Amino acid sequence: MSLKLFYAPGACSFVPHAMLEMAGVEFEPTMVKLHKGEQRNPDYLALNPRGQVPVLVDGDEVVTQIVAILLHLDAKLPMAGILPSAGVERSRAVQKLVWMNNTVHPTFTHVFMPEKFTDDAEAQKAIRAFGAARYREMLQEIEAMAQKAAPWMVGERPGALDAYALTLLRWGGYAGIDPTTLPATWGLVQRFAELPGVARAIERERLQLNVFKG
Amino acid sequence: MSLKLFYAPGACSFVPHAMLEMAGVEFEPTMVKLHKGEQRNPDYLALNPRGQVPVLVDGDEVVTQIVAILLHLDAKLPMAGILPSAGVERSRAVQKLVWMNNTVHPTFTHVFMPEKFTDDAEAQKAIRAFGAARYREMLQEIEAMAQKAAPWMVGERPGALDAYALTLLRWGGYAGIDPTTLPATWGLVQRFAELPGVARAIERERLQLNVFKG
Repeated sequence: MSLKLFYAPGACSFVPHAMLEMAGVEFEPTMVKLHKGEQRNPDYLALNPRGQVPVLVDGDEVVTQIVAILLHLDAKLPMAGILPSAGVERSRAVQKLVWMNNTVHPTFTHVFMPEKFTDDAEAQKAIRAFGAARYREMLQEIEAMAQKAAPWMVGERPGALDAYALTLLRWGGYAGIDPTTLPATWGLVQRFAELPGVARAIERERLQLNVFKG
Repeated sequence: MSLKLFYAPGACSFVPHAMLEMAGVEFEPTMVKLHKGEQRNPDYLALNPRGQVPVLVDGDEVVTQIVAILLHLDAKLPMAGILPSAGVERSRAVQKLVWMNNTVHPTFTHVFMPEKFTDDAEAQKAIRAFGAARYREMLQEIEAMAQKAAPWMVGERPGALDAYALTLLRWGGYAGIDPTTLPATWGLVQRFAELPGVARAIERERLQLNVFKG
């Protein structure tokens, strides 16, 4: 089994990065320096023509898209607890995961990279402000989930939803949202960050959990 | 087994709608009239607080989010061919499915409902125009997939990706994109629409495949 994960520090690639570390499997973490444009290198574009992280290379197989990578790893490493194994728990967890991926994550993109939605500088400002308010609402929805965490998002085992919550709450700091104002999520994220595998991923990415500047 | 699908004509709920009809299982299709605001009725919000379609009710279980619904149905109806059953084929199909869901679909939302991204009328115009151009590029990516279809998106069996391609190409008409300018996709979509189960879903939703007005 040869597994290679292309990640960028602080990006959503943290989610599969943390899962691989938690699973305790051997894998080759490979950093992509987005600020140096390495995602536009021909070698990288050959793997992922969209120039995004994460990319998982599993033997001869290349998988992109975080949800697809997580489902791929979950099928390969069923004992890792990335998602609940079956039934209503699994459907509910997948539902939250895809919502984080198709709604919360893109809303942050409006705050962080409004140029992806218009060339007009004034319109970009409007998009950023509107998106920041929507992002706050979405983190409140995650806060409601975290309030019910027992003790993790899907119950007894930490998994993909906890890692995504960490990433999304952390990004909140860049959107002007103080993570300590979302205390259940902030507590969950801090506990999650202390798990040995997660701590290794955080150290490799040199992540600060709270990037909010008052 | 009691299955109920809440759908709105022409919305992305068409994807699970077509899959249920193709699977040939008994289910109760329930229309939600978005133009009458039925998605804001208290009964509906009790099922899905976000007021979106689709919602699948499977016995006592409520599943929202199209990708979660499709994975739920795929686990329940493994013979239906919603997604390839395993291996690299499955990971590749899931990768395309989540891309359609987290990138192509939201790009159309920028064209169709720019008010979801800013209150500013001028900025909405800018978002709509920019989004329409991006949407065209994304339909070109789907066209490249359709050119390799053999004969369906994942090979020998029609499934969720063909249904999503139909929905996304159809929406293109509302974004000013003539579907016949994407001939491989347009051909695939027309063939797909003729499958008996798919034809029933189309008839129930009273869908016209080509809504482009030159």
